[in-house]
Amino acid sequence: MAAAKVILGIDPGTQILGYGVLEVTSSGPKYVDMGVVDLRKESDHFAKIRKIFLEVTELIEHFKPDELAVEAPFYGKNIQSMLKLGRAQGSAIAAALNRNMPVYEYAPRKIKLSITGKGAASKEQVASLLTNILKTKDLPDFLDATDGLAVALCHYYESCRQLRQSTPGRGWDAFVKANPDRIK
Amino acid sequence: MAAAKVILGIDPGTQILGYGVLEVTSSGPKYVDMGVVDLRKESDHFAKIRKIFLEVTELIEHFKPDELAVEAPFYGKNIQSMLKLGRAQGSAIAAALNRNMPVYEYAPRKIKLSITGKGAASKEQVASLLTNILKTKDLPDFLDATDGLAVALCHYYESCRQLRQSTPGRGWDAFVKANPDRIK
Repeated sequence: MAAAKVILGIDPGTQILGYGVLEVTSSGPKYVDMGVVDLRKESDHFAKIRKIFLEVTELIEHFKPDELAVEAPFYGKNIQSMLKLGRAQGSAIAAALNRNMPVYEYAPRKIKLSITGKGAASKEQVASLLTNILKTKDLPDFLDATDGLAVALCHYYESCRQLRQSTPGRGWDAFVKANPDRIK
Repeated sequence: MAAAKVILGIDPGTQILGYGVLEVTSSGPKYVDMGVVDLRKESDHFAKIRKIFLEVTELIEHFKPDELAVEAPFYGKNIQSMLKLGRAQGSAIAAALNRNMPVYEYAPRKIKLSITGKGAASKEQVASLLTNILKTKDLPDFLDATDGLAVALCHYYESCRQLRQSTPGRGWDAFVKANPDRIK
């Protein structure tokens, strides 16, 4: 039976939270699921923070991911919106850390660069490449879901890249051999 | 036996988290505890977010507060620091919302105004007045602890003020009579 690691990718916004789930084995990354949590109908800002925490906790319980990768912009239109975005991120991150999951964050530009080779790629270009790479058939209604999947795939690529630099083998296959205790 | 409500006040920073606990009965607010959580020794930003979540959860389990009041600045030096502050706030707020506690937030100026009558009062002035009002003897080593206590007291004052406007009686006493089901 192939050793597998599950990566949960999240793009936590204050209106929509996008998520994607990948399973990584020695044969590469495999698409598991993606979707969105719609926060627009929540009555106030605190209701959104609560929903983010509960929904991310539910995703963790359901998919049992080993690692969380978060899309995290480091800039924004204004101070107010960054504070609110920070709260949304903090709630999602706390849900994972509460379960002792390691958390990794990637800037949007880094994610686009990692997947398309271009830091300024459009959301549509990223979604199209994801569909090809992961052999998923349909694009979801919200591109935010593909943003969640994109950060999960970016984390996989970055993990492989770091492993290539630090271990004698290459990629996930080498990681599995080098770290049998870290694989479920 | 007097009906009592417990308010947990928190000032969630990225270096120090200050907290204060008040018990409110028909005879007014009573000091219970205050302290700080030192985040400066945590290895990275995620370790801080995790510690905030776990410590606030522990405070909730220990003091069983009915409501959380958070000091929340809406401005800051720069976008980066506001995002980090937002994450710290989001983690603390999520810990309370995860326990279905109502959360209230107050800007620093509002807290100072509520306690001292001056929106531009110094931390020392706020601490000195808190000591008199709540008859606590010692000022803590960190003024951040009194910031936590200050936001709890501000929330008590604001709750009373809103009750005076909406109920025929006055203050907490009237609230107890008007809302027997909301009192433990």
